[in-house]
Amino acid sequence: MRIAIDVMGGDLGPPAIIGGVAKAACLHPNAQFLLFGPSRQITAELSRLPQPLAAAASRMVVCDATQFVSPDASAAWALRHGQQTSMARMLRSLVHPDGVPGADAGVSAGNTAALVALARREIGTLPTVTRPAISTSIPTRNGRHCYLLDLGANVDSPAQRLVEFALMGAVVAQCVDGIARPRVALLNVGVEATKGGRVVREADALIRSMGEASLFDYQGYAEGGDLFQGYLDVLVCDGFVGNAVLKSSEGLARMLVERVQATFESRLTGRLVGFLARPALKRLKQELDPVRYNGASLLGLSRTVVKSHGASHADGFCYAVVRAIDEVTQTLPERLAQRLVQLPRRCE
Amino acid sequence: MRIAIDVMGGDLGPPAIIGGVAKAACLHPNAQFLLFGPSRQITAELSRLPQPLAAAASRMVVCDATQFVSPDASAAWALRHGQQTSMARMLRSLVHPDGVPGADAGVSAGNTAALVALARREIGTLPTVTRPAISTSIPTRNGRHCYLLDLGANVDSPAQRLVEFALMGAVVAQCVDGIARPRVALLNVGVEATKGGRVVREADALIRSMGEASLFDYQGYAEGGDLFQGYLDVLVCDGFVGNAVLKSSEGLARMLVERVQATFESRLTGRLVGFLARPALKRLKQELDPVRYNGASLLGLSRTVVKSHGASHADGFCYAVVRAIDEVTQTLPERLAQRLVQLPRRCE
Repeated sequence: MRIAIDVMGGDLGPPAIIGGVAKAACLHPNAQFLLFGPSRQITAELSRLPQPLAAAASRMVVCDATQFVSPDASAAWALRHGQQTSMARMLRSLVHPDGVPGADAGVSAGNTAALVALARREIGTLPTVTRPAISTSIPTRNGRHCYLLDLGANVDSPAQRLVEFALMGAVVAQCVDGIARPRVALLNVGVEATKGGRVVREADALIRSMGEASLFDYQGYAEGGDLFQGYLDVLVCDGFVGNAVLKSSEGLARMLVERVQATFESRLTGRLVGFLARPALKRLKQELDPVRYNGASLLGLSRTVVKSHGASHADGFCYAVVRAIDEVTQTLPERLAQRLVQLPRRCE
Repeated sequence: MRIAIDVMGGDLGPPAIIGGVAKAACLHPNAQFLLFGPSRQITAELSRLPQPLAAAASRMVVCDATQFVSPDASAAWALRHGQQTSMARMLRSLVHPDGVPGADAGVSAGNTAALVALARREIGTLPTVTRPAISTSIPTRNGRHCYLLDLGANVDSPAQRLVEFALMGAVVAQCVDGIARPRVALLNVGVEATKGGRVVREADALIRSMGEASLFDYQGYAEGGDLFQGYLDVLVCDGFVGNAVLKSSEGLARMLVERVQATFESRLTGRLVGFLARPALKRLKQELDPVRYNGASLLGLSRTVVKSHGASHADGFCYAVVRAIDEVTQTLPERLAQRLVQLPRRCE
């Protein structure tokens, strides 16, 4: 298996990315890695890897790309001027390798809008999909997780696209997590049938019309708080809403952990408690930052592409690479293609 | 001052509501309270109040109402069949008192959809407002708070209504919190001008066209995580999005506090830490459940109406009553009316 990596674009620069790739390489001793970025810098970073990570460097191919997509570039800029960036070349290596051996999946910590736009052009979407969706798995109260999608690749999604999201989320839960009949719900402002806007109610009717043919167990509407309850495998919403929920959750988790720490440091017994509690708080912080620690999948493309959080450390980027390897092993894009060709017609 | 209370509709029943009213009464010794609900039950609860709360009972008038709006009733049901419910009669007492002395503000812990619908009919909205918005104050990292609106009274809001929300949020931050020029932002999927859906970009253009006439300091777009950063006083979004953000935040906060507790209880030192940490965790839990502890205001009505969280204990209901008293003291509806008549024309 070969994984293509965009070395540029992470907030912490190439060292964190390359460190993450090396960690993932140690976990997957048969995988090879194509590293797209400035070759001199990549080579220097590889030579600095400590043992046992350094041994993995022999499975990494450096693919020189000196241009990169900046974090504040627009999707339009990336499409017009980004052909030679590390991101575009990484994506191109998944389909028509230009001078390098082709890769099975790609990972980037760069600009999300540019990644979605370039992936659409360079890789293309599956037959019935118009735009890819972004999804990540959110930790829940009972230790299971719930896939939330879309996280911002699509705003103002029509009902048919929400149905696509539901199908794609269900296929991911089946393939990657082995859940036979995933429990899927539509995010709404209430669980009663009369609640919500036109689009959500239309999507609900479409899903119900799929009936027994559906590969998932439809739970109807769910509210924002249900995301964390543990009784859903997939929660579907428009990208505007999913983005707001994800980013506010990240912000709240950060604030909460800060507050817990501050509370413990305010008094003498508090400081003692704070000291004892530090490892637990650190673990908590990691669990609660799902994108940083799990990566987010771009679903509906003809190849596997995973977006790592921009601010990821090496561990976070490692998870994103492992995620990509898992999706390739499970032939996720192929299984998505089968399901998406098969089902949407029934719900029209 | 006279505050009308819907005694029915809270998940914990009349005892929590009446306990909360009594606490608020002790804090505001000149206020009177009209209690709408089954008179026999209310009288029994009042007689059970311990000292010093019992002394406040002399300032409470029992207004018999045996019908009530159930938590799962639809707005349509409330409008058709709810005229004699404790909620409708409480609201009516704010405008055309039927047999009871009129009240200055109303508080209910009941069904939100019914409360919005009945309030629109019984009280009416301010001249330029078509539908009320729901807002609550969210705690932030630096101890200040941020008003988030709308929380679900409006879905599929057009741009002009988002501008209304911005104005109303700004007036609340001015009147209740004394912020001379509140910092207001529009929630979006990114801060760049090219981001987001049509409606949000339209609202952005409308607000920018208001220019210097604006009573607030417009910050442009903000992302979900900015809600908790402490540099915004008001964050504006459609009710579908706000509801998802609020409810997912409540769910996440609950999960986080549980996790912190569980982490501390898993080992021996952990149990010690957990024991020492208990008061801090309790405080944290309260801070992080904004609606339960602050109540949510219905803005844009011609009278003050505050919605307490359905699951509120006496303390939470007390805060909601105090919130209503503050809004009356600050003549919030009148100041909203002045601002809303004055400004929207300039942004058309």
